[in-house]
Amino acid sequence: MSNKIKWGVLGGGGDSLIGILHRIAASMFDAYQLTGGVFNPDVTISLDFAKEIGIPTDRIHANLDEIIAAELALPEKERIQVFSVLTPNFLHFPMAKQLLEAGFHVICEKPMTMTYDEALELQSIQQKNKNIFALTHTYTGYPMVRQMKEMIANGEIGAIQKVDVQYYQGWINPIIHDKDQRSSTWRLNPKKSGISCCMGDIGVHAYQMLEFVTGKKIKSILADLNHLYEDNQMDIDGTILLRLDEYVKGVLRASQIATGEENNFTVAVYGKKASLKWEQENPNYLYLLEEEKPLQVLKPGHSYNSALSLDGTKLPPGHPEGIFDAMGNIYKGVAKAIRGEQFNEGEFPGMQDGVRGMNFIEKAIQSHHDGNAWVTL
Amino acid sequence: MSNKIKWGVLGGGGDSLIGILHRIAASMFDAYQLTGGVFNPDVTISLDFAKEIGIPTDRIHANLDEIIAAELALPEKERIQVFSVLTPNFLHFPMAKQLLEAGFHVICEKPMTMTYDEALELQSIQQKNKNIFALTHTYTGYPMVRQMKEMIANGEIGAIQKVDVQYYQGWINPIIHDKDQRSSTWRLNPKKSGISCCMGDIGVHAYQMLEFVTGKKIKSILADLNHLYEDNQMDIDGTILLRLDEYVKGVLRASQIATGEENNFTVAVYGKKASLKWEQENPNYLYLLEEEKPLQVLKPGHSYNSALSLDGTKLPPGHPEGIFDAMGNIYKGVAKAIRGEQFNEGEFPGMQDGVRGMNFIEKAIQSHHDGNAWVTL
Amino acid sequence: MSNKIKWGVLGGGGDSLIGILHRIAASMFDAYQLTGGVFNPDVTISLDFAKEIGIPTDRIHANLDEIIAAELALPEKERIQVFSVLTPNFLHFPMAKQLLEAGFHVICEKPMTMTYDEALELQSIQQKNKNIFALTHTYTGYPMVRQMKEMIANGEIGAIQKVDVQYYQGWINPIIHDKDQRSSTWRLNPKKSGISCCMGDIGVHAYQMLEFVTGKKIKSILADLNHLYEDNQMDIDGTILLRLDEYVKGVLRASQIATGEENNFTVAVYGKKASLKWEQENPNYLYLLEEEKPLQVLKPGHSYNSALSLDGTKLPPGHPEGIFDAMGNIYKGVAKAIRGEQFNEGEFPGMQDGVRGMNFIEKAIQSHHDGNAWVTL
Amino acid sequence: MSNKIKWGVLGGGGDSLIGILHRIAASMFDAYQLTGGVFNPDVTISLDFAKEIGIPTDRIHANLDEIIAAELALPEKERIQVFSVLTPNFLHFPMAKQLLEAGFHVICEKPMTMTYDEALELQSIQQKNKNIFALTHTYTGYPMVRQMKEMIANGEIGAIQKVDVQYYQGWINPIIHDKDQRSSTWRLNPKKSGISCCMGDIGVHAYQMLEFVTGKKIKSILADLNHLYEDNQMDIDGTILLRLDEYVKGVLRASQIATGEENNFTVAVYGKKASLKWEQENPNYLYLLEEEKPLQVLKPGHSYNSALSLDGTKLPPGHPEGIFDAMGNIYKGVAKAIRGEQFNEGEFPGMQDGVRGMNFIEKAIQSHHDGNAWVTL
Repeated sequence: MSNKIKWGVLGGGGDSLIGILHRIAASMFDAYQLTGGVFNPDVTISLDFAKEIGIPTDRIHANLDEIIAAELALPEKERIQVFSVLTPNFLHFPMAKQLLEAGFHVICEKPMTMTYDEALELQSIQQKNKNIFALTHTYTGYPMVRQMKEMIANGEIGAIQKVDVQYYQGWINPIIHDKDQRSSTWRLNPKKSGISCCMGDIGVHAYQMLEFVTGKKIKSILADLNHLYEDNQMDIDGTILLRLDEYVKGVLRASQIATGEENNFTVAVYGKKASLKWEQENPNYLYLLEEEKPLQVLKPGHSYNSALSLDGTKLPPGHPEGIFDAMGNIYKGVAKAIRGEQFNEGEFPGMQDGVRGMNFIEKAIQSHHDGNAWVTL
Repeated sequence: MSNKIKWGVLGGGGDSLIGILHRIAASMFDAYQLTGGVFNPDVTISLDFAKEIGIPTDRIHANLDEIIAAELALPEKERIQVFSVLTPNFLHFPMAKQLLEAGFHVICEKPMTMTYDEALELQSIQQKNKNIFALTHTYTGYPMVRQMKEMIANGEIGAIQKVDVQYYQGWINPIIHDKDQRSSTWRLNPKKSGISCCMGDIGVHAYQMLEFVTGKKIKSILADLNHLYEDNQMDIDGTILLRLDEYVKGVLRASQIATGEENNFTVAVYGKKASLKWEQENPNYLYLLEEEKPLQVLKPGHSYNSALSLDGTKLPPGHPEGIFDAMGNIYKGVAKAIRGEQFNEGEFPGMQDGVRGMNFIEKAIQSHHDGNAWVTL
Repeated sequence: MSNKIKWGVLGGGGDSLIGILHRIAASMFDAYQLTGGVFNPDVTISLDFAKEIGIPTDRIHANLDEIIAAELALPEKERIQVFSVLTPNFLHFPMAKQLLEAGFHVICEKPMTMTYDEALELQSIQQKNKNIFALTHTYTGYPMVRQMKEMIANGEIGAIQKVDVQYYQGWINPIIHDKDQRSSTWRLNPKKSGISCCMGDIGVHAYQMLEFVTGKKIKSILADLNHLYEDNQMDIDGTILLRLDEYVKGVLRASQIATGEENNFTVAVYGKKASLKWEQENPNYLYLLEEEKPLQVLKPGHSYNSALSLDGTKLPPGHPEGIFDAMGNIYKGVAKAIRGEQFNEGEFPGMQDGVRGMNFIEKAIQSHHDGNAWVTL
Repeated sequence: MSNKIKWGVLGGGGDSLIGILHRIAASMFDAYQLTGGVFNPDVTISLDFAKEIGIPTDRIHANLDEIIAAELALPEKERIQVFSVLTPNFLHFPMAKQLLEAGFHVICEKPMTMTYDEALELQSIQQKNKNIFALTHTYTGYPMVRQMKEMIANGEIGAIQKVDVQYYQGWINPIIHDKDQRSSTWRLNPKKSGISCCMGDIGVHAYQMLEFVTGKKIKSILADLNHLYEDNQMDIDGTILLRLDEYVKGVLRASQIATGEENNFTVAVYGKKASLKWEQENPNYLYLLEEEKPLQVLKPGHSYNSALSLDGTKLPPGHPEGIFDAMGNIYKGVAKAIRGEQFNEGEFPGMQDGVRGMNFIEKAIQSHHDGNAWVTL
């Protein structure tokens, strides 16, 4: 019998991109066996999908209650060990909560919850139950992001003195300029999407990335957001001033109206000795800048990279890996944690990232509404 | 019961990179079920590996004869449909031959055979038996390579007037300069590797790519190869002049001593109206050059791409995909062929690529040994 | 007799980089004849320098008073027509003032003055006397910056909805971290450098560039600057939130502690229809981003560029021009103005840029000191 | 009186791009005084042009004989010291010959002569008369080309084992495809342009660059050229196999039908220890590739560069210089030579480059016509 981790999936059926992404990622290191799930609120669709992707249908259920009950009824060794929560955003929190309480490990899509209070509640459950909880800030799985984190931690750029992170997209442009579309899309409806659009969706990635690579906490923020139209309630663009310390400042920029930008997520950390820069759209390059030295471009798979970085590269240098590989690396890390193997804290983002992220989103909105005031995180 | 394609694998066990690559690729579109195989000449290792990757062990066998016999003994509907041949190079031909003769479809790693004669023999078997045969020239699976092929086919650059393809690596450098290493590595031993090292390994990729994207046949070549040391019998570098037609010329450059190059495979096709250029290390960009117009950079996933290109992109623009995704696209195409679905001839390279490639390799060596003579392909 | 413009230079002698830059720029279109000047406060040095660079010494003088008197004593047709002011920053204002009052045209290095009040005073003199006044914001002379300005003016990107400008350098890093150096350099001494270091030196370039390419005025700003050390009085880094209109926002980022950055000045303008991006370190590329269209890269010298852009390119495409050429283009524009020829307002920055720039600098410092308050420009 | 070098110019009047390029280059380091010349065969036009560019007309003459006679009639200290020959190609040789024989130094545009025999004749005159002779292979004046040359000379990449040089343009494309145009342009008329178009115009730049940066001589070549149309006598594209030594090979590629390419001139030299790559269109970057080390990108003006490289950079890092600056550096080197100052042999190409270049062109054509035979240079 297979010693793969028994894996359940909630949501992600049909042509769901997120479903494809997670299934491929889970397959990458032969660590997971897709064992059951609720792919769709309609169980017939769920069952058909199971057949389509070639997995047994006996552990496909109609809803979360049923699958939890059914799994708990099995001997512990046979039970699904971890669930991935890929459902619409507003279901992340209740589902993750129920799963953690029932003793399952959870891999949760972003956003973790709709509010900071929910995030705190989830954290307290997890801390009590000691389950593994991963939040799929996928970009942290790239080998060169991991390398950046390790180099900063090892002091290779010296004390950090400035940070700059950008996440620019242009996708909302065709929607926002059409009055009908902007009033009807769920993305701009606070009831369905939470209090923020741009910061909640991508700004929080930028925020998490900054704390991930620097290993530092952002202490306070001042946000200036843009709604573009008076009749639009949600931020679709914004700049946030950052303080990591009295004399360590920076800026976070995010936009969904940066026309023509695809997924232009970049992070730069300037240290006293050197600097590091990375760009998501060309993820296999890490730029090291030092005074009066040639610019250095680090690439994955080379022996000069850290163990954490090398753990996330499957092929020799020059064979480009992409975002599926980044997600695969996160799943690999979670597998180690579930199996009780040793792992590096950089291998997957978790509960703390989710809690801090929700706090960031709420404080960003608060800062903006308070007239661009400084708010402590 | 799953309607996935029942898939067998020969070789590729343990930490084999090629094994990982093929398994991930096969999983990408939920089309294949790894059903059995011979992962290692030692059946104990094979069985352990099956357990490790979590598949049933009942269809793991000691050798090719046994697995063929066992599968043929099963009802046709339960049988493995396609085998991937990932064994050492010299086994590709005999294994593919035996599989085709027994009626299985084959996905074969490169090189297809050790000689052109073997290639012709394999081709005649396949033509008789009508099996599906795919040769994993992985790079043709990239969306922007497919886009390049389609644009050229559609006449977007006009009549081709010049081609230039490069495949530069530096990996053999540390080996070639050490007398002991260069005399002992299997790569430089013609008995183990065939008559060519550089052209056989990477030059043939460049050759195949050129014919793939242009849809044209190279008619004759003149090769100048380099062995670097008198005691080395194998080419590790070379330049090959190309003729596609009397007034359509080009050049193919390949090297394993281009110190510091990783996998620098590029292709440029210059047409009467415009030109297209692509680079493997940054595979998500396709450059369109036109006189007195801005340079255009095409990227995957956009509606301006062809159906063939879009079929190979899983996520929205700005989410980089890599070489695993390219291989996944080839597996996707093979799956369509096996299932009898409609597919585009650009979806996977096959027997003809293998036959032409082996001819190219032998003719390149011949041209070089004949004093850089023109040889017809 | 030459019909070149008779040109005088104040400062810029010896190995002065700024002197070299202006002399080469002035020579580029054969429009100026270096006729006289005060290259150094020590007239002996001035005379030696005149000999060294091969110009007659009879119109070299000991100071500004003398050269003005001497030139005014000449018949008007023989007089120096325009002076370039290349002296230390604190001398720009008094010299420019004296020259304008005496009826000369002026090309002035940046910063125009030490204070906004001085800038207003200078403006009022110039408006009265109607002299030509150019301020050498050199970067606006690049052909692709001019092209960007024209495309925006022509509505090619639609209504502007977001701007982002960056000017990152790392040069002050070795100084700022050494207590002795940071307390002694004139750059960090407000008495010698004015009230701002980073914003006064480079932030103002970014500000001017934004207004130059957009043709819009920035209405209000909120600045957060960084001094890095408590004992340092001057900003060496900062981020400034921008408002062009109620729903048109942006950000300006400038730093002298971005370790390893050389002169990383970039500008991005996002419009409703498309976007444009430009980078000073690779000045011959202009990026046009449109939804669902390939990225377009415009380059100098092509017929698709505007007349203003083409006027600033001397050689066919593919022959890189640089910053000397950008300054040369500004001198070319000034020459047209002096000669009474028709010229485009984009050909050289002038008094208004200087006045607005000084206002920007003072308001940025004020905003920071008022606790990051919004300040109207 | 000025101690600038007295400089004469033949050709280059009016809007001539080459005239502008040389005048700006000569002005860059204040070393030359344009003193006289024959700008145009029509002396009236010459005189008008002198006025237009603001130089005295008394040393403008009707033809070369007259200006030589007039200058020789002056006291030696007052005479023009060096002439730049910017006339149509077929005049380079007779003019340079006459100037050298009359004792003048010469800066000559490329091609130096129309034939190899003429080149040898010119060389023998110069060797006898010991004049300074510079041939303006402009690209060698770029700081990063100089740096490349020095690093190779210093052994930083170890023994050279492979070279690859490319010079791709597309400009002849609109001409070559039009029967009338291709039969009428002087470029494709051997009587006016010499025996080669592509190799004579740009291939020879590539050849010279390779010998310049490597410090090695190419021993033999095998050329395959393309005329594209049967009725076209001249090469407009071609690939040339190179031998520097028995086991040191390479390739030179040049084209004027590489549609959409502007001036894509690149050179790569692969050594036993490391490699260096440079691209003319982005001339301020030099790429150093080493095994298992990050890619290094060297840029001008940094202290890690050689004295030769630094001598050719006028401004701090991050201020892009271009092709005018490259030509300026060559003029600077020639000035040192004329003044008897110490200079590095890399500061300007000279007679030997011209002689070898003409030999290369003739041998390339010969190789092609002999059926792609190896020809010793």
